[in-house]
Amino acid sequence: MSPGERHPGRVARACVVGAGLIGGAVALRLQATGVQVTVVDPDEQTRARAAGAGLRAVEAVGQDGAGDADLVVLATPLDALGAAMTDVAAASPYALVVDVGSVKQAPAAAAVRAGLADRYVGCHPMAGTEQAGFAHADPGLLVGATWAVTHPDPAAAGQVTWLVPWLTATFDATVVLLDPAEHDRSVALVSHAPHVLANALLGLVEDAGPLARLLAAGSFRDVTRVAGTHPERTHNMLAGNAAALDDVLGRLAESLDGYRRDLADVDPADPTDAASAALLARLQRVAASAEPGRSALSWQPCDDLDAVVEQALTGGRPVLVRGREDDAGLEWAETT
Amino acid sequence: MSPGERHPGRVARACVVGAGLIGGAVALRLQATGVQVTVVDPDEQTRARAAGAGLRAVEAVGQDGAGDADLVVLATPLDALGAAMTDVAAASPYALVVDVGSVKQAPAAAAVRAGLADRYVGCHPMAGTEQAGFAHADPGLLVGATWAVTHPDPAAAGQVTWLVPWLTATFDATVVLLDPAEHDRSVALVSHAPHVLANALLGLVEDAGPLARLLAAGSFRDVTRVAGTHPERTHNMLAGNAAALDDVLGRLAESLDGYRRDLADVDPADPTDAASAALLARLQRVAASAEPGRSALSWQPCDDLDAVVEQALTGGRPVLVRGREDDAGLEWAETT
Repeated sequence: MSPGERHPGRVARACVVGAGLIGGAVALRLQATGVQVTVVDPDEQTRARAAGAGLRAVEAVGQDGAGDADLVVLATPLDALGAAMTDVAAASPYALVVDVGSVKQAPAAAAVRAGLADRYVGCHPMAGTEQAGFAHADPGLLVGATWAVTHPDPAAAGQVTWLVPWLTATFDATVVLLDPAEHDRSVALVSHAPHVLANALLGLVEDAGPLARLLAAGSFRDVTRVAGTHPERTHNMLAGNAAALDDVLGRLAESLDGYRRDLADVDPADPTDAASAALLARLQRVAASAEPGRSALSWQPCDDLDAVVEQALTGGRPVLVRGREDDAGLEWAETT
Repeated sequence: MSPGERHPGRVARACVVGAGLIGGAVALRLQATGVQVTVVDPDEQTRARAAGAGLRAVEAVGQDGAGDADLVVLATPLDALGAAMTDVAAASPYALVVDVGSVKQAPAAAAVRAGLADRYVGCHPMAGTEQAGFAHADPGLLVGATWAVTHPDPAAAGQVTWLVPWLTATFDATVVLLDPAEHDRSVALVSHAPHVLANALLGLVEDAGPLARLLAAGSFRDVTRVAGTHPERTHNMLAGNAAALDDVLGRLAESLDGYRRDLADVDPADPTDAASAALLARLQRVAASAEPGRSALSWQPCDDLDAVVEQALTGGRPVLVRGREDDAGLEWAETT
């Protein structure tokens, strides 16, 4: 492409910056779908592993691979994203630039600072594991996942109409198109708070000595699966969404206080007392409201994606887009 | 057996009271190991399912099956345990009686009230699923699990020396022999608090509307797996251990406060500031101490189980017993 040309809306050459668990999964999936992929990673062992998987691997953005890419995917640690954007802005003047970070307001601001406002769109594939590094990257990790795509700067709005169908086609993605602040508030609830809870609980258990750990079974392993590993990665995620996360933790503390008030008054000898009944009601309320989720959505054929995207970007209400089961185009749904 | 006779130390006939997920798993496993099993359950459909699996099934303890049992396993809901003990005390005057409930102090007190002090031992297999009912019972569910066995009344101490090797042989169990209060404190940490956290978080997400749920991925599903189902069962477990659980939730609230203090001071633009460093240190401390667990134990051959049990019951420090890998008897370890 040359400057001023409209993006071709297809991806023949891609550059993935950061070849860890997520960047590696993106690179391997793109390679599997016929895209020519260069990965950029400062770690020599990572580059060797990527090369072993058939990927072209270079050390720094300026070196090669990004200059003629149609798409640059930033998958660095969150605290390295700003510097990577500055590098990419210089080395790759025309590509669409997306990131796959777990927060979306800070990267959007960094993109503007790096001069990428008209060709940056924030993405967040809602999948991962407790592992890290290219060695654990799997081309199927992000396939079939929900991909959050956040409203870009108005100058980049036109990019969304090709990026969304490209994501549905390449990753079998269900795309949720939403405001970056709304994204960050939502993931504070469903991702960042679980990480804090898991670490807080695991910390208490470690402090309590080996006996509790010996008695730990499924519920403990599940709740703490994401704790105790990759503290730097978790730190970047939590610190990068501090305000929204603090708000969620405040509401969680209030909820726990409610459970504690009931527990303090429970009479173990009388399961019918008022405190016991209040505790049961609390648990029943959660059970009754659990999991309407995805099934409550009303999907309809998406014959005019431009109009759907336009509505999402101007109306503000999150919109979902996915490929139809019969592969005959896209369908969309509005959240209620 | 007749009154006053020493328990034969083998189980030819067993009665399992309550054929839900856990009782069903016990009954099916005993049947598979050649024990003649009767299950007691008030629910007609449950009895039909149990009969379909080849088990003898009756409606009430007095009816049949318990009278000549060597072992009675109580697997009723916690709030029905006291009544079941009274029934069993009358119907089955000589069997060893164990329960498999998720708390251990309250059942021990109920056993004394029911006149079972000299033949009751509390058990708690540390395994389960988010499902319930005989339909989900699997003969392998409790096999290979850690089984907590709590110090009985001194009058029943002699029962422990046959029950422990019987559990290791029948369920490939690693037995942890410990004080009931210590059990309840430990499971408040590793089981009951996770249930509260899961329900509190799921409640917040449901209140937040469908968007957050649409973005929920692995960490959320794991943390909330045990939430939102079987509120009565969860309630019985939490209410049955109210004091120890309240203590754990208080410490968790303090820990969450610590995370919130750091988050409130984090400067997102400066990942090297003091609050950000404190948050990272908090996460690193958890990671550094994670999972010494089982590997730190020093196992030794158990040539004199009576002496090991005697030491556990008098010394108070939890003791572990399991079958040796070469099947040549037992080995034991002390917690540090």
